[in-house]
Amino acid sequence: MDNLGVDFLSELVGTAMLVLLGTGVVANVALIKNKGFNGGFLMVNIGWGIAVFAGVVVAYNSGAHLNPAVTLGLVANGAKTFGAGNATVDVNFVTVVVFILAQLIGAIIGAVLTWLAYKQHFDEEPEPANKLGVFSTGPAIRSYAWNLVTEIIGTFVLVFVVIAFGHQPGQAVGLAALGALPVALLVIGIGASLGGPTGYAINPARDLGPRIAHAILPIRGKGTSDWSYSWVPVVGPIIGGLLAGWLALLLLPIIK
Amino acid sequence: MDNLGVDFLSELVGTAMLVLLGTGVVANVALIKNKGFNGGFLMVNIGWGIAVFAGVVVAYNSGAHLNPAVTLGLVANGAKTFGAGNATVDVNFVTVVVFILAQLIGAIIGAVLTWLAYKQHFDEEPEPANKLGVFSTGPAIRSYAWNLVTEIIGTFVLVFVVIAFGHQPGQAVGLAALGALPVALLVIGIGASLGGPTGYAINPARDLGPRIAHAILPIRGKGTSDWSYSWVPVVGPIIGGLLAGWLALLLLPIIK
Amino acid sequence: MDNLGVDFLSELVGTAMLVLLGTGVVANVALIKNKGFNGGFLMVNIGWGIAVFAGVVVAYNSGAHLNPAVTLGLVANGAKTFGAGNATVDVNFVTVVVFILAQLIGAIIGAVLTWLAYKQHFDEEPEPANKLGVFSTGPAIRSYAWNLVTEIIGTFVLVFVVIAFGHQPGQAVGLAALGALPVALLVIGIGASLGGPTGYAINPARDLGPRIAHAILPIRGKGTSDWSYSWVPVVGPIIGGLLAGWLALLLLPIIK
Amino acid sequence: MDNLGVDFLSELVGTAMLVLLGTGVVANVALIKNKGFNGGFLMVNIGWGIAVFAGVVVAYNSGAHLNPAVTLGLVANGAKTFGAGNATVDVNFVTVVVFILAQLIGAIIGAVLTWLAYKQHFDEEPEPANKLGVFSTGPAIRSYAWNLVTEIIGTFVLVFVVIAFGHQPGQAVGLAALGALPVALLVIGIGASLGGPTGYAINPARDLGPRIAHAILPIRGKGTSDWSYSWVPVVGPIIGGLLAGWLALLLLPIIK
Repeated sequence: MDNLGVDFLSELVGTAMLVLLGTGVVANVALIKNKGFNGGFLMVNIGWGIAVFAGVVVAYNSGAHLNPAVTLGLVANGAKTFGAGNATVDVNFVTVVVFILAQLIGAIIGAVLTWLAYKQHFDEEPEPANKLGVFSTGPAIRSYAWNLVTEIIGTFVLVFVVIAFGHQPGQAVGLAALGALPVALLVIGIGASLGGPTGYAINPARDLGPRIAHAILPIRGKGTSDWSYSWVPVVGPIIGGLLAGWLALLLLPIIK
Repeated sequence: MDNLGVDFLSELVGTAMLVLLGTGVVANVALIKNKGFNGGFLMVNIGWGIAVFAGVVVAYNSGAHLNPAVTLGLVANGAKTFGAGNATVDVNFVTVVVFILAQLIGAIIGAVLTWLAYKQHFDEEPEPANKLGVFSTGPAIRSYAWNLVTEIIGTFVLVFVVIAFGHQPGQAVGLAALGALPVALLVIGIGASLGGPTGYAINPARDLGPRIAHAILPIRGKGTSDWSYSWVPVVGPIIGGLLAGWLALLLLPIIK
Repeated sequence: MDNLGVDFLSELVGTAMLVLLGTGVVANVALIKNKGFNGGFLMVNIGWGIAVFAGVVVAYNSGAHLNPAVTLGLVANGAKTFGAGNATVDVNFVTVVVFILAQLIGAIIGAVLTWLAYKQHFDEEPEPANKLGVFSTGPAIRSYAWNLVTEIIGTFVLVFVVIAFGHQPGQAVGLAALGALPVALLVIGIGASLGGPTGYAINPARDLGPRIAHAILPIRGKGTSDWSYSWVPVVGPIIGGLLAGWLALLLLPIIK
Repeated sequence: MDNLGVDFLSELVGTAMLVLLGTGVVANVALIKNKGFNGGFLMVNIGWGIAVFAGVVVAYNSGAHLNPAVTLGLVANGAKTFGAGNATVDVNFVTVVVFILAQLIGAIIGAVLTWLAYKQHFDEEPEPANKLGVFSTGPAIRSYAWNLVTEIIGTFVLVFVVIAFGHQPGQAVGLAALGALPVALLVIGIGASLGGPTGYAINPARDLGPRIAHAILPIRGKGTSDWSYSWVPVVGPIIGGLLAGWLALLLLPIIK
């Protein structure tokens, strides 16, 4: 397999793992009769954090972006290559598209697996909005402009700090699986601190992929996939990621 | 003691530690009058995660499988040897049986210790199902087929990511006790994200060993040991572990 | 940019990150209609801990004080220089003032960003005290003397243990982003253990900066900025930090 | 100062830090009007875990026992020396007594500091049992025999796994402050998993020191110091620690 093919597979498997565990914790907390029902927002934050941890561990070779906002943020930050070792590729339009496509397909697969793992609880859940809530985010108070602002700020923090990880001496190499811990902590923190208004998509693939799965899957008693809101958790994170990449390019070489 | 004997002892002690702390947190949360009564599902997840952490720390020599699904998953992954240092053994039918037997006996011992630590709370608990729930898992909505699916997916994630830990450069060695942290995080995450429908056995020994203990021990006012369900948390994890080992063999050499 | 300019920028960006995520978790838990509403005090503790984690990661070059009590504690501890690498500066009156000014301005910026991220929830929140509570701390039982004692003890623990980190062999260098984990854990612990009476400012900039932002910003339906209490979370942490720096100078060379 | 004097100071300061943060989190959760009031058992577990973390970080030189059960467990394990670097001392009756005395005095100091930090909440708390509960443990269901069993098992796990940390290659050295993380995790886990029946003293100094402080301090409206129970959290942990040290001597050289 050529290097870009390796990256495609790596991003796909990693994002599937991320979305399986991430949407899984929402299913556990939101769907009726689950043992973790009403387990609290902190449990959701921790579930998503460890979802990122597991996804990063399996997608080591491609650099484990698992998120178009990270991929685009790295482009804005001036990255010349993606991936590590024998999966290194030059950054260009094709590689960016391949990364994003892999992330989107992986996210769809992850959401399907969550549906299977929680099949009976989807069947017995009476409220359609709770079913969609497992797959995709929705705003607490709907306002496209302010929801966008929240997603931009949350994604900015994610991408800016992730790029800051890379500027530190000794980054990751040699720390094995523990190298995935900082980004897991960061995602727990962003969820707890900035997840209140919109449920923190902060990742276009994480939101759009499962929404597509929700639209396609034969989920018993499902309602709308809320396409009118769907562009916010795509556009917001892209803007936030680009801003972070660009500001990190300006600031991090100075302050770190 | 010969190498296989060391592994037997190591897996036995490690699994006893795992099951003592793991069933212990369920006892704390589920049995009446405890200080952690109704402490929430996240507390259960964290308790099981640190149970794995402690078990892995003490069972370093045998490789700390502590779980037949991990042992069989490694076989499917093509492992030639088990254990580290002077406890290295060739993988064959006998070693696999010895590992699984040690895990099962260790799990029984761990469950007996939890019963002793919580003796009075078992005595005062009025509901027999809560007593069994400390020992073994049970489904939120009973359906052998779908419960099996949930256990397969949960165990797949466990074994696949554990094998992925090993493929990373610099794995574990030199990190001392912190080397057990990634698998602890992973188990917290699987519990939070995939534990809703079945209570995540994801380990045949963890479920069957305590169930045997429940059947044998003179627990005051105990009810059925629910043998009709007992095969699900054995067969599901074995299938999930084998699938993960096999798919990891296919994918991980590429994407990591 | 000269070294002190780099430190100024580093402390400003790091403190902005710290206060954005820190006040953000309070907004999520305290303001009406948020997904993390009533998420519990532990969630607030974890949010602030990871806020420090993210702030430290981005402000590596200046030493990541992010807190006048840390800066002054290091002075009392006899520090001759601040910052690392090409951002090293001699400690004198000017550098101390520049560090504290950067922290204060960064804290104001972070608070403004939280207001933007939670704009609609500020608008819909009926209780003015909850709005101020997102920005600045307030006492559970008002008593300037005892509130001061609590802040002194909390900040003492923070600065004493942070200085103790530095006395250990192999400190931080080579641990990359994980080097910011110990202080994050410490802040989670101080919040859980000593945050009950006053909400643990333990950082004059973290409290005063957002209070200034609260006074200036056009927050709908806001009440008083409670200036009569504002000196406690400034003076208490300064006393605690100085005491810690001085006692650490006495004790740590012996006991570590 | 001679080596044993350094150890005395190190154990005293470390145990004071441990007990300040440990009893502090109980005060926050148990005493009326606190911001963390009713914060849950998991928050208490995490508070105690990080209390151990902070205590270990500052008491590096003496080996950071902070607990007579650890000191005696190491004796049973055959330790020839205590402490590190220029604080190394031979193990004999005098050194053991000095370590335990330092731990007890440190625990008293820590409890006094918690009382000061929470002074007003002690004053306003109507229930005397809640005040004692901040200082010392008490059983959920009183039975000297079974309470003893629970404390023995909990302390056994603590000391056995702590000794296991030391048998691993590369232990601690070079990990700086992160080297204190494994024992913090372990204590969180023991609390969650074995803390239900007795509130997990698992440390004679942690229980007896604060009980002495409770008896002496002029706490408004305080009740009995429950001396009839006080021997259980002293004798239980000592038995558990000795058993662990002895069994670890037998088992760990084989299985690790």
